[in-house]
Amino acid sequence: LRRQARGKRREVALGIGDDCAVLRPRAGEEMVVTTDLSIEGTHFRREWHPAESVGHRCLARGLSDIAAMGAGPVAAFLSLGLPQKLPQRWVNEFLLGFLTLAKRFEVTLAGGDIAESREGVVADVMVVGAVPRGKAILRSGARAGDVIYVSGSLGGPASTLKRMFAGEKVRAKKNERHFFPEPRIAVAQKLRGVATSMIDISDGLSVDLAHICEESKVGAMVNELLLPVARNASLEDALHGGEDYELLFTARENAHVPVEIAGVAVTEIGWIERGGSVRITDLKKTRALKARGWEHFVR
Amino acid sequence: LRRQARGKRREVALGIGDDCAVLRPRAGEEMVVTTDLSIEGTHFRREWHPAESVGHRCLARGLSDIAAMGAGPVAAFLSLGLPQKLPQRWVNEFLLGFLTLAKRFEVTLAGGDIAESREGVVADVMVVGAVPRGKAILRSGARAGDVIYVSGSLGGPASTLKRMFAGEKVRAKKNERHFFPEPRIAVAQKLRGVATSMIDISDGLSVDLAHICEESKVGAMVNELLLPVARNASLEDALHGGEDYELLFTARENAHVPVEIAGVAVTEIGWIERGGSVRITDLKKTRALKARGWEHFVR
Repeated sequence: LRRQARGKRREVALGIGDDCAVLRPRAGEEMVVTTDLSIEGTHFRREWHPAESVGHRCLARGLSDIAAMGAGPVAAFLSLGLPQKLPQRWVNEFLLGFLTLAKRFEVTLAGGDIAESREGVVADVMVVGAVPRGKAILRSGARAGDVIYVSGSLGGPASTLKRMFAGEKVRAKKNERHFFPEPRIAVAQKLRGVATSMIDISDGLSVDLAHICEESKVGAMVNELLLPVARNASLEDALHGGEDYELLFTARENAHVPVEIAGVAVTEIGWIERGGSVRITDLKKTRALKARGWEHFVR
Repeated sequence: LRRQARGKRREVALGIGDDCAVLRPRAGEEMVVTTDLSIEGTHFRREWHPAESVGHRCLARGLSDIAAMGAGPVAAFLSLGLPQKLPQRWVNEFLLGFLTLAKRFEVTLAGGDIAESREGVVADVMVVGAVPRGKAILRSGARAGDVIYVSGSLGGPASTLKRMFAGEKVRAKKNERHFFPEPRIAVAQKLRGVATSMIDISDGLSVDLAHICEESKVGAMVNELLLPVARNASLEDALHGGEDYELLFTARENAHVPVEIAGVAVTEIGWIERGGSVRITDLKKTRALKARGWEHFVR
């Protein structure tokens, strides 16, 4: 693992093998840090998700948080709790999924910890990223009159999950975003200086838009007719499904926001208003958009 | 929690409440990062360890790693997996133990994650520290002829653990180092420019000295007669017990190392040799010092 983990990032002055890793931010940069805990039964099921998908998903959650700040990833840290009876092969495939994604984004695995868990796999992933000083895109920058945008399409992963809950055996293909979500790092970096606020959609559009509104002390109106609902997904999936790992952001009305960034569609879906209420309209009727949390696999 | 977490560290530009925390290292400093996974049944038992002790211990592990680099702590991140039936009071007391220790070392709780675990408490703690650029004390700097030192005393926590395994009910007093270990941050910072290599004793002297020897490509000789064995502890506890969270370090033969640093005794316990073998002597007989791992509570 130590050998595999040795990456080329110059910011990682010292990786696995000492009491700590040593990170050396470049001049004029600050570091962003996120941590995501994934627990078997809550965030994934071994009978549904191949180990490679679990490894990919655990790291993708963190990379998506880095993207949501407009930052670029630098290093990852992996803490693994493994039940005694877990086959070594499962661990190897988990690491394959994790390290393949890390390599693609030039993220160095710089540390971690392994311990025995009593039941089920536990993976806590910390990702450190870098962003030019003062340029991180926060949740708190939205202002009344800003336009709301979303990258890619929404609801696809939730619709896949629904099929599995209905008993369907879904093959974990590499292009199936539920199994192999794609963090929007490249899109996010192009949004620095453009987006006034940003978040990644992990809990569902309704919840994550509410987070932006709360932190920015504003309200929002979503135009239902504009929502980029994924093929095979319902409006419900797109609004509340979660695990899309798309970027939800705002920009000034007069800002130039391309309809495609880094090969990913960017869609205008509404606007920011005064007040604190989040609503949705089909231009005939308007209703409150209730924040309905992503409840993982606990049902 | 968010309110409690707001610390005063200037290096934490943005704490809990966004997709990531933002850390702003001071000019000329680099960051050290460590992560420690603590799992109920493996690292602690709810029937033995009060929640306050568990919270303290989880953070102390990370702070001790920061000390082992000669660094100072800045921010902590806490990922908690909690079983559904866990009383809220347990969580509150865990946080009390965690945050009391954090406050004492001026560490800001800058982020984290909470999820439901199927069985048992899981706590992954990440600590970020700062050290002047290039000044981190590594495991790899020991050279033949260096003197080996250890802070404090050894074996105390292991002897407490043994008593509990023997069925004794031990009260978790604040001055009982098994329950409330003391990270040697102040000692460590005084050792920058003095220590040639350093590690904290978490797995036991025999294991951690072997780590220094391996990374430095040297051997070592421990003088059994000099070991600062804790009161009520055996030589065995001191050599292999673990969880001492004392500092084990080397310095050049001609370096000035005080016998007490920041109120903590510092004891010379042996010397570094060429070759790769780690041995122990009572000046009559010499034998190999086998690295016997700390096996936590799995017996």
